[in-house]
Amino acid sequence: MNWVGTAARRILPELFVLAAGACMLNAQSNASLNIMPLPAKVALGDGSLKIDASFRIAFTGYREARLDRAGVRLERQIQRQTGIVMLRASKSAGVVTLEANTEHESKAIQELGEDESYSLDVTPTGAKLHAGNPLGTLRGLQTFLQLIAITPEGFSVPALHIEDRPRFPWRGLMIDSGRHFIPLDVVKRNLDGMEAVKMNVFHWHLSENQGFRAESRKFPKLHEQGSDGLFYTQEEIRDVVEYARDRGIRVVPEFDMPGHSTAWFAGYPELASGSGPYVIERQWGVFDPAMDPTDEKTYKFLNEFITEMARLFTDQFFHIGGDEVNGKEWDANPKIQAFMKSHRIKNNAELQAYFSGRVQDLVTKHKKTPIGWDEVLVPGVPKTIVIQSWRGVDSLAAAAKDGYRGILSNGYYLDLGWSAVRHYAMDPLGGPAAALSPEQKRLILGGESCIWSEYVNAENIDSRIWPRNAAIAERLWSSEGTNDVASMYARMETEATRLEWLGLTHRSFQRATLQRMAGSWTPAEFDALRALAQSLEHEKDYSREASAVSPPTSLTPLNRLVDAVYPESVVSRSFSLLVDQFVASGCKDAAVAAQIRLELEVWASIEDRLQPLAERSHLVKEAAPASAALSQAAKIAMDALDGIQKGALLAADQGKIRLDSLNALEQQAHKSQLTIPELPAFQKLVEAASNSSVCTAPK
Amino acid sequence: MNWVGTAARRILPELFVLAAGACMLNAQSNASLNIMPLPAKVALGDGSLKIDASFRIAFTGYREARLDRAGVRLERQIQRQTGIVMLRASKSAGVVTLEANTEHESKAIQELGEDESYSLDVTPTGAKLHAGNPLGTLRGLQTFLQLIAITPEGFSVPALHIEDRPRFPWRGLMIDSGRHFIPLDVVKRNLDGMEAVKMNVFHWHLSENQGFRAESRKFPKLHEQGSDGLFYTQEEIRDVVEYARDRGIRVVPEFDMPGHSTAWFAGYPELASGSGPYVIERQWGVFDPAMDPTDEKTYKFLNEFITEMARLFTDQFFHIGGDEVNGKEWDANPKIQAFMKSHRIKNNAELQAYFSGRVQDLVTKHKKTPIGWDEVLVPGVPKTIVIQSWRGVDSLAAAAKDGYRGILSNGYYLDLGWSAVRHYAMDPLGGPAAALSPEQKRLILGGESCIWSEYVNAENIDSRIWPRNAAIAERLWSSEGTNDVASMYARMETEATRLEWLGLTHRSFQRATLQRMAGSWTPAEFDALRALAQSLEHEKDYSREASAVSPPTSLTPLNRLVDAVYPESVVSRSFSLLVDQFVASGCKDAAVAAQIRLELEVWASIEDRLQPLAERSHLVKEAAPASAALSQAAKIAMDALDGIQKGALLAADQGKIRLDSLNALEQQAHKSQLTIPELPAFQKLVEAASNSSVCTAPK
Repeated sequence: MNWVGTAARRILPELFVLAAGACMLNAQSNASLNIMPLPAKVALGDGSLKIDASFRIAFTGYREARLDRAGVRLERQIQRQTGIVMLRASKSAGVVTLEANTEHESKAIQELGEDESYSLDVTPTGAKLHAGNPLGTLRGLQTFLQLIAITPEGFSVPALHIEDRPRFPWRGLMIDSGRHFIPLDVVKRNLDGMEAVKMNVFHWHLSENQGFRAESRKFPKLHEQGSDGLFYTQEEIRDVVEYARDRGIRVVPEFDMPGHSTAWFAGYPELASGSGPYVIERQWGVFDPAMDPTDEKTYKFLNEFITEMARLFTDQFFHIGGDEVNGKEWDANPKIQAFMKSHRIKNNAELQAYFSGRVQDLVTKHKKTPIGWDEVLVPGVPKTIVIQSWRGVDSLAAAAKDGYRGILSNGYYLDLGWSAVRHYAMDPLGGPAAALSPEQKRLILGGESCIWSEYVNAENIDSRIWPRNAAIAERLWSSEGTNDVASMYARMETEATRLEWLGLTHRSFQRATLQRMAGSWTPAEFDALRALAQSLEHEKDYSREASAVSPPTSLTPLNRLVDAVYPESVVSRSFSLLVDQFVASGCKDAAVAAQIRLELEVWASIEDRLQPLAERSHLVKEAAPASAALSQAAKIAMDALDGIQKGALLAADQGKIRLDSLNALEQQAHKSQLTIPELPAFQKLVEAASNSSVCTAPK
Repeated sequence: MNWVGTAARRILPELFVLAAGACMLNAQSNASLNIMPLPAKVALGDGSLKIDASFRIAFTGYREARLDRAGVRLERQIQRQTGIVMLRASKSAGVVTLEANTEHESKAIQELGEDESYSLDVTPTGAKLHAGNPLGTLRGLQTFLQLIAITPEGFSVPALHIEDRPRFPWRGLMIDSGRHFIPLDVVKRNLDGMEAVKMNVFHWHLSENQGFRAESRKFPKLHEQGSDGLFYTQEEIRDVVEYARDRGIRVVPEFDMPGHSTAWFAGYPELASGSGPYVIERQWGVFDPAMDPTDEKTYKFLNEFITEMARLFTDQFFHIGGDEVNGKEWDANPKIQAFMKSHRIKNNAELQAYFSGRVQDLVTKHKKTPIGWDEVLVPGVPKTIVIQSWRGVDSLAAAAKDGYRGILSNGYYLDLGWSAVRHYAMDPLGGPAAALSPEQKRLILGGESCIWSEYVNAENIDSRIWPRNAAIAERLWSSEGTNDVASMYARMETEATRLEWLGLTHRSFQRATLQRMAGSWTPAEFDALRALAQSLEHEKDYSREASAVSPPTSLTPLNRLVDAVYPESVVSRSFSLLVDQFVASGCKDAAVAAQIRLELEVWASIEDRLQPLAERSHLVKEAAPASAALSQAAKIAMDALDGIQKGALLAADQGKIRLDSLNALEQQAHKSQLTIPELPAFQKLVEAASNSSVCTAPK
């Protein structure tokens, strides 16, 4: 489920000005306390604990190999983050720096709602972590890692006391390995990232029209015919499940049925409602092929398939998809129509409900709990099912009222390119859910961010997930009142750096892509290309198909500027803050104006500076409209700034003409599927230049 | 062997102006032909061969699995370099883009001097590679890969005809895994890099005072007691040997004896000449411990050890080290002194020759050919031994005159931080070797670059090897007359980009290190830090120990600015070229002056811009003297430029004062083990400002 509803657009800006509430931490006054997600309670102490080569961790109380491995990972991360050399061989003796005390074991197979709380005490002489079970210990270790900061005296952790526990028990990330195959190592490093921000569910979207990605020994033609050879072996899947468990993460597999299933039919056309033949889908969108819900062969197949997969994926939950069936194959099949008539099934929705019920029975038979997208919630469906809402908080709240458990994904679609603050504003208990009874609220288990992979591959997926996913992780872990946006952005940027030490390529991928676009270059040319890339964003929501010259497919190279830009431009955000600051000063702050001018000059010159590259490279040439649009828009903003500073205001009609030009330039950028995020700030300058009341006095 | 001689400093600048000679390529007029090393012969044709998703390689003639794997690697690299999606499943049919025809097999174990020649024909309809054996095919595939360029119409390879063969049969890179352990994946990606620039020998320095890095099953205390747990298992070693063979690279192991061997003695003190006890050495330098050459137990041990290693390392050559024995343990041991007396061994050099002879016999017994550093060349040593010269071309030429084969490493020590052009000027057949007879010249087999790892670890090793190693690779592959420095630098920078697609981190490591130094930052602060890092270089040669406050050890973190800078600053090189251009214009070129001024302004402001970071981070604070020195030096240069442009020349004594200040600032930078490579250009500006004859007319 992939097409966004409208509810997600309802952002609640008033939330942003709320104080941190239950959290004792004042993020502004503790800039070095870069913890993300913010803990439930923090109390600062005096002094700090030095981190050097003598660092040693010891596990006490309940012990297990998973904790030892976590200790090795912690030490490795400390070495990466600090450069300090630690020899493991000499680690068996010596003073303990961090004692991690665990009371008892956790469940052999991690369960929804297990205790993840911990407390952490740091003094100048040592640190003590305490948790009921290894899950809490794992969470606390990540907090400790985040607390290590560079200071004028070296690396250290500030003395403090933390008590922490998650707000929601289900904090997930869904990766779509179906549309583009995401290699094993990329999956793993994203699990590392999830651990860092305390997420605990990896939802693995394994089948799609464009690819079936899990090896089936029972039905080998699924992966052999349905994956172009790009699939995970069962050994690799077991490896991922273990890898995730080591990090306190459950793995929930999704096999999407009865729609989104063309790739199944490449090997097993007999499952389909149409007559085929079927080949792996290369286009994007919603397609006709759907399983035949009226043929008992389908359920026999699915029974055997689910038997096999239920063993491989040990988690309690099993995702059966269920979204976006257009019903065309059902309408066109006389046998299916006859079945509906004889069984008094009135429409396709009821037919899907029938199918869904049968599949849920199969899942339940294997002692698993089914989970599905919104569409599976139909009258009479058993209360055991969990609803994953892509439609919005409204449907989630309605389901909870009816006694169904649910998780929110609407508003957390990372592939849509929203800003972190826009995701951050989405609360699973927001909107109508705020009015639920406490008991009903408990049915809302949390949320999952989703990365759908139409325009996402191994190369850029990290950048489409991180660091914005850390803001969602905070929403799902931290207390409801955690809403300081400036603090969130500051901590998110620091976390973005730390995530790089895990091997995530969310920042580093860009230079590689730009180098490919440029071929060879002078430093000035490359600087211009990088400045362009860092100032633009890709178009939001689902406009990329609309603005593409030819329809993109799964074989379209993702080697263009639109693939290289970050979803949220840091450059643009700080420029907007500058312009706000300037306007708030009644356009009087000359120092800020100078900074604004400097940025505008860079943008104004980009078009010319990129010209030689555009003449040599088809990929730079393709981005020329966007580059020209940015330069010309910056020149309009610069004129406005000149006017403001010279006290020569624009006539209202002149202001209007310039605003229209800015809008036209944004349209021009869309030709390369790009957007100019500085545009609102440019508009603000033009409006200030045409309205004397804006620029007269500080507000 | 590690301490550089003086011969390497003899650079022959007149070489640089020679024409390309036998090479038909005019690099300046074929800027897009970014091949490195340059082929022996290139003739350009008309048009180009398009590279797109239909690309297909087919091997004809002699076939083997190694070639198929090379084809898979080639396709993967094309996908990385272009972003084009290729589905292997659909590759079995379709038009062949590149036919790689191989006549016959190569030796099962790659041998010195095997044919590596190939020819390549590219037309707009297809490419054909032809080689006698798979080694030539592997070389040709790398050339093809380098020819793929982005153009206004897409990715393509220009039509051309190439005939190519190496100048020297031994083109190596030595990696010192002893002083700092270099993990397996880092070794492997450097083998990838070697393949890209057609190097064919990986010399693996596996034992040192600071570490014994190869698993020995016969003598397990070698790696157990001598490595801090950081060693290569035999399985990993076999993997590296196979991985290298796949890339046409021989692996020559080195076990350094009788000196440089403290780590052996940690587990087996009975091998030593002193009384011990011995522990792994942590300091850098030349140390006293040496094997006991007078005890038959030593040879019994070495016989069994060499038996084991000779099986593991399949190459014909076996490196026994032999360098830098200070003899102190021998002098102090009465038993050894008695042995010398009774055997009429006059001095330690003769004693080492005796040891060396015995070890060579053991190596020869295993049908291997010994190779050793300069010191092993003593009167009467068998002619089979190969001399690796760290002392210089003089000793290499002298050895050749006596009938010994040799390879040059003097002048190719990458850890000394020399410029690429300085390495490029070193020729194994330069200096006295130029006067050798053709037969004697053939005894000089080639050369090896070396990276000694006192200040090199997994994080920065790639940056210490690449891209400068590509210039050495070209010296050893391309024809003698290949000496166009501007072309070399241009192609080296393009190759540096391509090497990144192999996973080499020579550029990307820097941001990680700087981020660690900074902790958290504003974009302006980080820009200043990056500008500083990219403008400075680490001190050259062996000055780092001399300028260190406390003696660095193998446990010293390599997390400082000196570890983050590139050995050769691209920024500095282009600035120097600008200043040359300005002076050559008689100081009249205003556009160039403006560019110079822009750079100077950046540097002049760095000190202030870094101040806030220096107050927060001990690692930035430590670099403050260097940052201040650069800023102040830039201000002196800016004053000089102002004077020149205003026509206000400096009095001679004023010029002298400023030149003295610049020298003092360079000394100040040394406090952080850094050097200011822009200084000669700054001096040039000051000299121009104090000498009216420089700035009057274009030369």
